[in-house]
Amino acid sequence: MNQRMEKMMNWLREQQVDVAFIYAPTNIYYFTHFMCNPHERLLGLFIFPERDPFLICPLLEMREVKNTGWPYTIIGYDDVENPWEMIRAELSKRLQKQVIQMGIEKEKLTYARAEQLKQVIPSAQFVSIDEQLNELRLIKNAEEIHIMREAGKWADYGVEVGISCLKEGITEMEVLAQIELELKKQGIQDMAFSTMVLFGEKTSLPHGHPGRNELKKGDMVLFDLGVKWKGYCSDITRTVAFGSVNEKQREIYETVLNAQLEALKYCKPGTRIGDLDQVARSIIAEAGFGAYFTHRLGHGLGMEVHEYPSLNGTNDQVLQPGMTFTVEPGIYVPEICGVRIEDDVVITQDGHETLTRFPKELQVI
Amino acid sequence: MNQRMEKMMNWLREQQVDVAFIYAPTNIYYFTHFMCNPHERLLGLFIFPERDPFLICPLLEMREVKNTGWPYTIIGYDDVENPWEMIRAELSKRLQKQVIQMGIEKEKLTYARAEQLKQVIPSAQFVSIDEQLNELRLIKNAEEIHIMREAGKWADYGVEVGISCLKEGITEMEVLAQIELELKKQGIQDMAFSTMVLFGEKTSLPHGHPGRNELKKGDMVLFDLGVKWKGYCSDITRTVAFGSVNEKQREIYETVLNAQLEALKYCKPGTRIGDLDQVARSIIAEAGFGAYFTHRLGHGLGMEVHEYPSLNGTNDQVLQPGMTFTVEPGIYVPEICGVRIEDDVVITQDGHETLTRFPKELQVI
Repeated sequence: MNQRMEKMMNWLREQQVDVAFIYAPTNIYYFTHFMCNPHERLLGLFIFPERDPFLICPLLEMREVKNTGWPYTIIGYDDVENPWEMIRAELSKRLQKQVIQMGIEKEKLTYARAEQLKQVIPSAQFVSIDEQLNELRLIKNAEEIHIMREAGKWADYGVEVGISCLKEGITEMEVLAQIELELKKQGIQDMAFSTMVLFGEKTSLPHGHPGRNELKKGDMVLFDLGVKWKGYCSDITRTVAFGSVNEKQREIYETVLNAQLEALKYCKPGTRIGDLDQVARSIIAEAGFGAYFTHRLGHGLGMEVHEYPSLNGTNDQVLQPGMTFTVEPGIYVPEICGVRIEDDVVITQDGHETLTRFPKELQVI
Repeated sequence: MNQRMEKMMNWLREQQVDVAFIYAPTNIYYFTHFMCNPHERLLGLFIFPERDPFLICPLLEMREVKNTGWPYTIIGYDDVENPWEMIRAELSKRLQKQVIQMGIEKEKLTYARAEQLKQVIPSAQFVSIDEQLNELRLIKNAEEIHIMREAGKWADYGVEVGISCLKEGITEMEVLAQIELELKKQGIQDMAFSTMVLFGEKTSLPHGHPGRNELKKGDMVLFDLGVKWKGYCSDITRTVAFGSVNEKQREIYETVLNAQLEALKYCKPGTRIGDLDQVARSIIAEAGFGAYFTHRLGHGLGMEVHEYPSLNGTNDQVLQPGMTFTVEPGIYVPEICGVRIEDDVVITQDGHETLTRFPKELQVI
């Protein structure tokens, strides 16, 4: 039995939860090392406090599950079988209580699937296991940090490729395509999210879409990209100037950089997360750009590109060794430009390590 | 008021549903033309039978919503505000009934969000609007079909690029990267799903992952790819032989091709969908490969790569003009090879049009 599964089983025992239904593919991967996007088909892992778990999956995935070395029961169903009936049969073998405490991922499970579960096990009372799963995944072990360090290096490389492509007249999409080509050639199968390459005024849209507009002198260029590497994500943002930089752009850039560097100083065990956000926010506010920093300081990073912890002003959690997250202040001034600088960070015993290392001083390309 | 919104409002009126909460980004796009992946933040559209709708979104998306020309109320919230309280306030202005029939997307909404809604409006009784949204989206109009025709051409182009790259020693990932590069250069921002390029024995894994293994003579090569184009997806699969083809591979290929061509003949208004699956399945079974066709015949296609209708043997729905879906029989024989041939189809008044047109006779490259 692997350690993660054991921790989960212990927790279920302590909480007197009779069975946990794990449904999110990343959580299933966390326990089984089987990664699969089942689309609308059902993929589920049932974990019990005192018994072996079982997995239910589409028939066409069974070989791949077996390839991971999963030693417990696997139930495969084809497209005309009803997996819920199979679940009913399996659960009734294992659970004979009147009322069943059933742990579900309330934040992931759809309402319809919860209703289906309820039909199969009418006596089920739902208990949230989101917090417990988030807690399990919040603190990364040495192996996970090692993978995320590699993922960070690939993100650095992506920015490097992107900057090396910049020339007058090239389009955002051409730069983006070149970045992804070079990464895929190296064996990176998936980006962690839609790569963003924005030029000029479009940098002021925090979630702008790359298109076919052409690079011209005086544009700021914003890269926001990351890779998925062995199941884990990286996420870097760098902003550079092309050809020239004006006073206002420089002022915005330096303000964001100060805010980011200052926030990094507080990235160590014991810092309240809300305070970390506040450190960056107050620097930006003092420089007069408070209204243009329209998002939180960062987000947890791991198997998902956005996971726990959330780095916002109201988060009372305290940083602990093994937490991994982004630090990414930004200023977005409509009709001028946007600047964001983002690194991935892991908290260590006495401070932090940045997993993305591409230089941050203002570059005019 | 756009036509889609009007249809939805009429339906709510007929069904005596007081308000619909739309949460899936694609459904929000369907009504607003605003596309956004809000990640874990809340994005919601409230539609009423007799009043103007309103949208709630993260503050950093408000400018983009306004850019779409959305003329109704938009409520923006920042990362420290509670959007649910804002929803409570807005709904209490508009709804004064004792018991509120609230339409939700049970297939999309998470259990946690449904609980939050329930806290905000304790008198809410949830009604599923999934079917109605699926019905609305099931039949594509001329504009949507036009876009999907373009998306289909880009998919054809992707296969063409992929085949032109094939040479001894190239890796799956290199071919994949080249396909995506050429598409992105043309302005395709996102693939519809993770592109699949598989060589040799790996073709026998219906959901295999491309890697760094090298192409060698006698390999079958399977491409499964599609683009996202103006919000709509394409999805094509082609399988070719590299260098040479043996008897068994040819037999598998011809069986799949026969099954696909025969199924296409039945793609016309009035065919029961389950029968369509059966046409292909019986051809494959008669050839002795029944056990190796481990998935349904196809899936609906539109804004999502898998949507309604599902082409499986138990589906009693009948084909109607404007339905768009894939037809993709496959045979996967472990240790020999897998072959799948997939086209996108739209049902017309008197038959169908295929949206993907890359040649299908067996090619030895």
